[in-house]
Amino acid sequence: MKVAFVLFDRVTALDFVGVYDPVTRLRSMNLMSGLKWDLCALTSSVFDDREMEITVPKVAEPLAGYDAIIVPGGFGTRRLQHNAKFLAWLKTAEPVPLKISVCTGALLLGACGWLKGRRATTHVAALDELKSYCGEVERQRIVDEGGVITAAGVSAALDLGLHLVKRWAGDAAAKKVAAQMEYRSGHE
Amino acid sequence: MKVAFVLFDRVTALDFVGVYDPVTRLRSMNLMSGLKWDLCALTSSVFDDREMEITVPKVAEPLAGYDAIIVPGGFGTRRLQHNAKFLAWLKTAEPVPLKISVCTGALLLGACGWLKGRRATTHVAALDELKSYCGEVERQRIVDEGGVITAAGVSAALDLGLHLVKRWAGDAAAKKVAAQMEYRSGHE
Repeated sequence: MKVAFVLFDRVTALDFVGVYDPVTRLRSMNLMSGLKWDLCALTSSVFDDREMEITVPKVAEPLAGYDAIIVPGGFGTRRLQHNAKFLAWLKTAEPVPLKISVCTGALLLGACGWLKGRRATTHVAALDELKSYCGEVERQRIVDEGGVITAAGVSAALDLGLHLVKRWAGDAAAKKVAAQMEYRSGHE
Repeated sequence: MKVAFVLFDRVTALDFVGVYDPVTRLRSMNLMSGLKWDLCALTSSVFDDREMEITVPKVAEPLAGYDAIIVPGGFGTRRLQHNAKFLAWLKTAEPVPLKISVCTGALLLGACGWLKGRRATTHVAALDELKSYCGEVERQRIVDEGGVITAAGVSAALDLGLHLVKRWAGDAAAKKVAAQMEYRSGHE
């Protein structure tokens, strides 16, 4: 399992780190030793929407070889959904069997055409904006359509991460990771 | 209000970002326009415990001038609690009126002597280790002792962040931030 975390300027750091933490515990807690991941972007570093800089090891490389891409949200998505260069790069993930978003990252999956005819969700403030991209907008914590998974805003990243752990490594693994994170969702 | 986020190698990114997100929303959502914060460390960048690199703008500068320091946890704390150079730097925060930790960051507050005679908490796996540093170890989500606040493991960072928002800007502000994060704790 090889996962690409897709980053960009004005990402919301918690959208990304909230799913990165539980997913990467699959390796650090020896629950899925074959898991690999990369931080990917068009630039060698990105600044979150509050000016924190994160280094990006995989710069402008095609995304086709991953088993899953995870696209967080943030104010940056509002422009990137109309940015031809960014979308051309993101579309290199077309053959990736599992496309995942957190928060307004769904707008980017939508702009690539990957939500057509599907149910999807996003941050509560962007539900209307998402409508033009997908079959049906749902106000749910996580919408798992098999090849596409979308999650609600910001803190839903943690629930999404645990959902992925469960899907990839089973219920017992998800319970172990949640215990290590001392997490119990108030949204179940 | 000027806040220092204290970073170091092998920090757990979610310990930090989980509190950084709600606290920094005080400014991004115009709830406390005077809020300032810095990312501080002894090095110009830090690597989290899963090899993500974060740039650090404030390198090896004294911490005395802040109103609050926030110290996340992670595997790095296990050695740093015995590292004279790191502790000498952290102790420059001695005059700071509010010292805050997430997860095993409590071991670092403890190693500075700031938990003596106080109640405190930490990650569930480090409760025993914390005992030698403090008056009483509590298994609670957040322990607020006025000048020192400690939080439980990893995901408790989000609850701590909202606790700080409430303490600094009131209940209505905390409710707004939680709504924007789409967060409802399962630990209340």
